[in-house]
Amino acid sequence: METNAVLDLMWIVIAGILVFFMQAGFTLVESGFTRSKNTVNIIMKNLMDLCIGSLGFWIIGYTIMYGDSIGSFIGTPDLFYNDPADMHNLFFQTVFAATAATIVSGAIAERTKFSTYIIFSLVMTVVIYPISGHWVWQGDGWLTNLGFIDFAGSTVVHSVGGWAGLVAAALVGPRIGKYTDGKVNAIPGHNMMYGALGVFILWLGWFGFNPGSELAISGDSANHVAGIVITTNLAAAAGALAALFLTWIRYGKPDLSMTLNGALAGLVGITAGCAAVDNFGAALIGVICGLVVVFSIEFVDKKLKVDDPVGAVSVHGVCGALGTLLVGLFAVDGGLFYGGGAGQLGVQAAGVFGIGAWAMVTSFIVLFILKKTVGLRVSEKEEVEGLDDHEHGASAYPDFTINDR
Amino acid sequence: METNAVLDLMWIVIAGILVFFMQAGFTLVESGFTRSKNTVNIIMKNLMDLCIGSLGFWIIGYTIMYGDSIGSFIGTPDLFYNDPADMHNLFFQTVFAATAATIVSGAIAERTKFSTYIIFSLVMTVVIYPISGHWVWQGDGWLTNLGFIDFAGSTVVHSVGGWAGLVAAALVGPRIGKYTDGKVNAIPGHNMMYGALGVFILWLGWFGFNPGSELAISGDSANHVAGIVITTNLAAAAGALAALFLTWIRYGKPDLSMTLNGALAGLVGITAGCAAVDNFGAALIGVICGLVVVFSIEFVDKKLKVDDPVGAVSVHGVCGALGTLLVGLFAVDGGLFYGGGAGQLGVQAAGVFGIGAWAMVTSFIVLFILKKTVGLRVSEKEEVEGLDDHEHGASAYPDFTINDR
Amino acid sequence: METNAVLDLMWIVIAGILVFFMQAGFTLVESGFTRSKNTVNIIMKNLMDLCIGSLGFWIIGYTIMYGDSIGSFIGTPDLFYNDPADMHNLFFQTVFAATAATIVSGAIAERTKFSTYIIFSLVMTVVIYPISGHWVWQGDGWLTNLGFIDFAGSTVVHSVGGWAGLVAAALVGPRIGKYTDGKVNAIPGHNMMYGALGVFILWLGWFGFNPGSELAISGDSANHVAGIVITTNLAAAAGALAALFLTWIRYGKPDLSMTLNGALAGLVGITAGCAAVDNFGAALIGVICGLVVVFSIEFVDKKLKVDDPVGAVSVHGVCGALGTLLVGLFAVDGGLFYGGGAGQLGVQAAGVFGIGAWAMVTSFIVLFILKKTVGLRVSEKEEVEGLDDHEHGASAYPDFTINDR
Repeated sequence: METNAVLDLMWIVIAGILVFFMQAGFTLVESGFTRSKNTVNIIMKNLMDLCIGSLGFWIIGYTIMYGDSIGSFIGTPDLFYNDPADMHNLFFQTVFAATAATIVSGAIAERTKFSTYIIFSLVMTVVIYPISGHWVWQGDGWLTNLGFIDFAGSTVVHSVGGWAGLVAAALVGPRIGKYTDGKVNAIPGHNMMYGALGVFILWLGWFGFNPGSELAISGDSANHVAGIVITTNLAAAAGALAALFLTWIRYGKPDLSMTLNGALAGLVGITAGCAAVDNFGAALIGVICGLVVVFSIEFVDKKLKVDDPVGAVSVHGVCGALGTLLVGLFAVDGGLFYGGGAGQLGVQAAGVFGIGAWAMVTSFIVLFILKKTVGLRVSEKEEVEGLDDHEHGASAYPDFTINDR
Repeated sequence: METNAVLDLMWIVIAGILVFFMQAGFTLVESGFTRSKNTVNIIMKNLMDLCIGSLGFWIIGYTIMYGDSIGSFIGTPDLFYNDPADMHNLFFQTVFAATAATIVSGAIAERTKFSTYIIFSLVMTVVIYPISGHWVWQGDGWLTNLGFIDFAGSTVVHSVGGWAGLVAAALVGPRIGKYTDGKVNAIPGHNMMYGALGVFILWLGWFGFNPGSELAISGDSANHVAGIVITTNLAAAAGALAALFLTWIRYGKPDLSMTLNGALAGLVGITAGCAAVDNFGAALIGVICGLVVVFSIEFVDKKLKVDDPVGAVSVHGVCGALGTLLVGLFAVDGGLFYGGGAGQLGVQAAGVFGIGAWAMVTSFIVLFILKKTVGLRVSEKEEVEGLDDHEHGASAYPDFTINDR
Repeated sequence: METNAVLDLMWIVIAGILVFFMQAGFTLVESGFTRSKNTVNIIMKNLMDLCIGSLGFWIIGYTIMYGDSIGSFIGTPDLFYNDPADMHNLFFQTVFAATAATIVSGAIAERTKFSTYIIFSLVMTVVIYPISGHWVWQGDGWLTNLGFIDFAGSTVVHSVGGWAGLVAAALVGPRIGKYTDGKVNAIPGHNMMYGALGVFILWLGWFGFNPGSELAISGDSANHVAGIVITTNLAAAAGALAALFLTWIRYGKPDLSMTLNGALAGLVGITAGCAAVDNFGAALIGVICGLVVVFSIEFVDKKLKVDDPVGAVSVHGVCGALGTLLVGLFAVDGGLFYGGGAGQLGVQAAGVFGIGAWAMVTSFIVLFILKKTVGLRVSEKEEVEGLDDHEHGASAYPDFTINDR
């Protein structure tokens, strides 16, 4: 293999390894933001997303996403993808697929049946995600043909997960004790360090997620990669700062979990446009997403009354969609603010709504079937006493005295 | 240095950095799977493995392993290895050596004297491991000459650690309270998130361990590296899923600690053949190791009555040996299932048993001497009250109320 | 871009990503070494260092440090650095800047006002650190012109943070209960695993910090990078072992937190000379720093009576200065022990004292102004009950029973 191809492969492998590590980040965030009695269950779900995704994307998912296009809608499925010159791409796409499923996990934490969850995770990874992904990233998809820009997956990965999570959280229903007598009760997570370490790991992994999506580093790509590292980092920092100051003003105190979600919101938001906007655009996208995520989490929690323990719908769904739309404003080439017309914005909206509808309808169908068959939710007793004990026969912290809640 | 050599060096350095991080993973897994009163001690042991290995391999270990062969048995020792053109290899081999010692740590956790442990760790790193490693990886060793395949160390690293751990755990004896009145008592670990985070970090590090063992990425090696990333990942995922479903069937509930060990079992098992098998072979090796590790942990615990708190003997010893043997069946070139004869399988068995015997005999001798001199085990009082207090004068969690157990 | 430049950029990006992750390490160490009632606050401070640094270095800090030199003292400031061919350097320098501020955080943990802290962090990142950094790394600084050697920042990064931390800790005053009736009371940290994981992550990140400071990997740089990986690793290992055995002798038991600080001391110490000393020099620097850090922590704690909860002053200030001076002894080219005169040692001393004075005077001025305006310290009630509750309205561990202390 000649040198440039080696460089590109090496970069894709390294970026994929960073994205892989995001699974640890998601596990920590979801667990840290929920109660200790469900920690084992949350670890299990996130680990299974990775395992199912790793096998599922190899067996069928990858070709559904990247096989020759059938009508610009779906790739030609082919079992057990095995092109020895393309294993770096299989790896990179596999760890992306695992991410989409994992997002849903957070939205339905602390009350969903484990068996149901792993079936849904499988469908998500090998059907829902790769089909809409095909529309954007295979090269012949209908959104590609429209000119839709989603460089690393604000919509393709994150908002797909976020909208599926919204539907799932609504169908599963709120946790016991979340909404009582018209009151909305906060249920704080059990370990803020897990939440923080998870966010640091996710931020780290995003340096694979976004710059790796260049899928090359040789030649002109080198500066693109470095530029994307910076836009990604600026958006994350701006998102965290925006959420910090907004909560300081609104709540009187700077709020950690919102600030962490602000960083994630910035990262999700910049994912679509990380290669299309300049540093100002990146910082602005970060600020906007960091502000919006706070209002969105409040809205979902208090107005929609959908119980999303970790804010996955707002972080990944809302900010994924928002970041994708903002490309229509901030893209240096084609964005409204840089002299482009409304054209790109319209295309971005088409993609956001098209893929959003796809994710919501398909996950509704799957979850509705699961509800009528396996059931979505554990029993009241199981939920109150904790999924760890009832679903897995284990306790995450047998040495420590745990406060019932 | 010309470009291809730079690429290869860069890859080895990056892979070595990933393998380095496995030390954090081992620390988390061993600590998470044991009781909180021994956490400081476990951190200390794992940290010392790294420190002793880093100095010891530089001072003497590296040349014992890679120096000019004396009779295909041992390298020519040379103090303070210092070839300025070979520091990337010294680094990569150093972090491997530290891994072998660390495996033993888990098998004898919660009752072994710290002073004894660090002496054993030193001998392991600079004598036991590099000599048998010489047989396989130096180029002139007797197992190399036989045609033994152990690409990244299922046997050279993992089963050496596993068998030494078996001998050590048997000699040290079970923890107080483990076997009482003919009953086998489970002693659950104190933090399942540490266990899970540790496994994620180990899995991450394995993307350095196995693909890095190609020791190159330029030219044809690029696709090899990517292929190894995929075989490694598939085996891990398959191992975890196999253990999950087996425990679901056997225990009625999917078990987290077994599932985590299933992932590790798949990783250990694929390490020998990651470059020799195809994706099917990798997934099958993962499934086999994921199933076997569950039975093996039960067997060691209940039948052998050897108290191995983290399952190190089964994960690293048994699955290391098994994965090495399975190369004889699944290797695309030379494996039984691909039309080869029983020849490769016989060679694999020779290596597995030869190195296994070496590890068990040498570690027995060393530990026997230590038993008769320094002593292997802390006093009953120290063990009951915790090694942290008595060996290190510290508590890992002074803010939290701890349940005595 | 031609191949060598791509290789160099790629290495700088990867090294920067590793350095980025050090923020998680600092967060874990600072939090693990302090009490659980201040965990949320500590996470917030460390996260803000990263966010402020990321925005601040882009907006103005980078050009203050690397802009055309004005009188060998300061770079020509230019807003919103945006050279599209230099984003990899902006990234690498940004994560370094964030490190310097973070060091201060540890020294003043558990009693400093959050609002004050983030103002100080901003000044540190965009004024104090980049100006003295300019003296050494811009190419035309007065210390560069003297021949001062600080390859990766023992002084430029670490001792700047350490000395600022000393001034800050003295001005803020000790924590309530630290010094009572002439007694010095130990206040153990709440989670030793956080401390250990943090150190593993910092050690990992140092493989970006030091070898990345070569700012290249093509051609001859390849072997330099690998050599620096080894000197870095040897110093860390030697530092940990030195502290371990020293505490074993002095306290009767090997002490974990000192051993962890010994590893960090070795890493800080080797940072200046990692490319200038050989492996022996590296190991010796590690040993010296590992010993000195123990005595220094005791001295600061018991004699100076400056309350530095994590030992930041000793680890980063003292060992940063010491490591920089030791370059004058151990540098293979120019060091006293290799036949050089006292010249290099004198130059090293000039840099250490010059930058030390700069850091102490400027941070004193800033903190004095903050003391007279915003105030440095939370109220007694807030400190006793915890900063998490009063500054952030949150608890890090609501599921666990916490011992008051």
